[in-house]
Amino acid sequence: MIRVLACGKVKDKALKELIDDYAKRIKRFERISLEEVKDQKIVDNDSYEHIKDLEGQELLAKIKAQDYVVALDLCGAELNSLALAQKIDKWRALSSDIVFVIGGSLGLSEMVLKRANYRLCLSKLTFLHQMSKLILLEQIYRSFKILHHETYHK
Amino acid sequence: MIRVLACGKVKDKALKELIDDYAKRIKRFERISLEEVKDQKIVDNDSYEHIKDLEGQELLAKIKAQDYVVALDLCGAELNSLALAQKIDKWRALSSDIVFVIGGSLGLSEMVLKRANYRLCLSKLTFLHQMSKLILLEQIYRSFKILHHETYHK
Repeated sequence: MIRVLACGKVKDKALKELIDDYAKRIKRFERISLEEVKDQKIVDNDSYEHIKDLEGQELLAKIKAQDYVVALDLCGAELNSLALAQKIDKWRALSSDIVFVIGGSLGLSEMVLKRANYRLCLSKLTFLHQMSKLILLEQIYRSFKILHHETYHK
Repeated sequence: MIRVLACGKVKDKALKELIDDYAKRIKRFERISLEEVKDQKIVDNDSYEHIKDLEGQELLAKIKAQDYVVALDLCGAELNSLALAQKIDKWRALSSDIVFVIGGSLGLSEMVLKRANYRLCLSKLTFLHQMSKLILLEQIYRSFKILHHETYHK
């Protein structure tokens, strides 16, 4: 199954609706769960690294030893849609669970990046992290359409 | 002012709501208009090139000689958010209107790509073209926040 593990809630109603809609469409091909851990409040006297570490620990607590972990990371590999589809196909053969991990507004901690089996960059542009979730789900859906040789509009 | 010229309507209500919301936020910094030309029905005996040409003509009819045209193109330049902000700042000094052009499901015609002053690639991934519009607007908004030294969540 596919798990999308994110730090922080999607608050915008329209964005949440789009994300849930893609999750529903993906279910036709594969089981999927959207999971969230709480993002930490950024307090002035906390360092960013400390906050990322706390969020990272929450994320890591949800990851099992045998999971194939794909971290969304600006410094990760950039793939086109066909290459991503082929990777997803390969990852499914390696583990029963693929876990895509999306960090909070400060990004992912070093510990999470180290645990990741693959680091994926959706774009060189920095997106609102909730927007990354939408983009990721659209691409997972597109990947399954490609793998099942179904046409999909651009 | 900024014009976002796209081929085809955004039909999904939630997606339209998000796009309109970003347009409204951008208005705080710059005038913006969202414009659409009709996308052509894909009929079997029409070639894809012919359809792209027809759509391209409709798009070109909306472009003035003095406009600075930025075409969204998978083969274009990839920028990070800071670099895009700097480009937008530069383009505004070159022309009073920046026109971002988004093609239909088949992409942009050669004629439109030739008219473009800049070709911008949002990601190596192929997005639903209506999704590209949302991503573009989020990035334009982010650019203005960067140019005005305002903080913006990731």
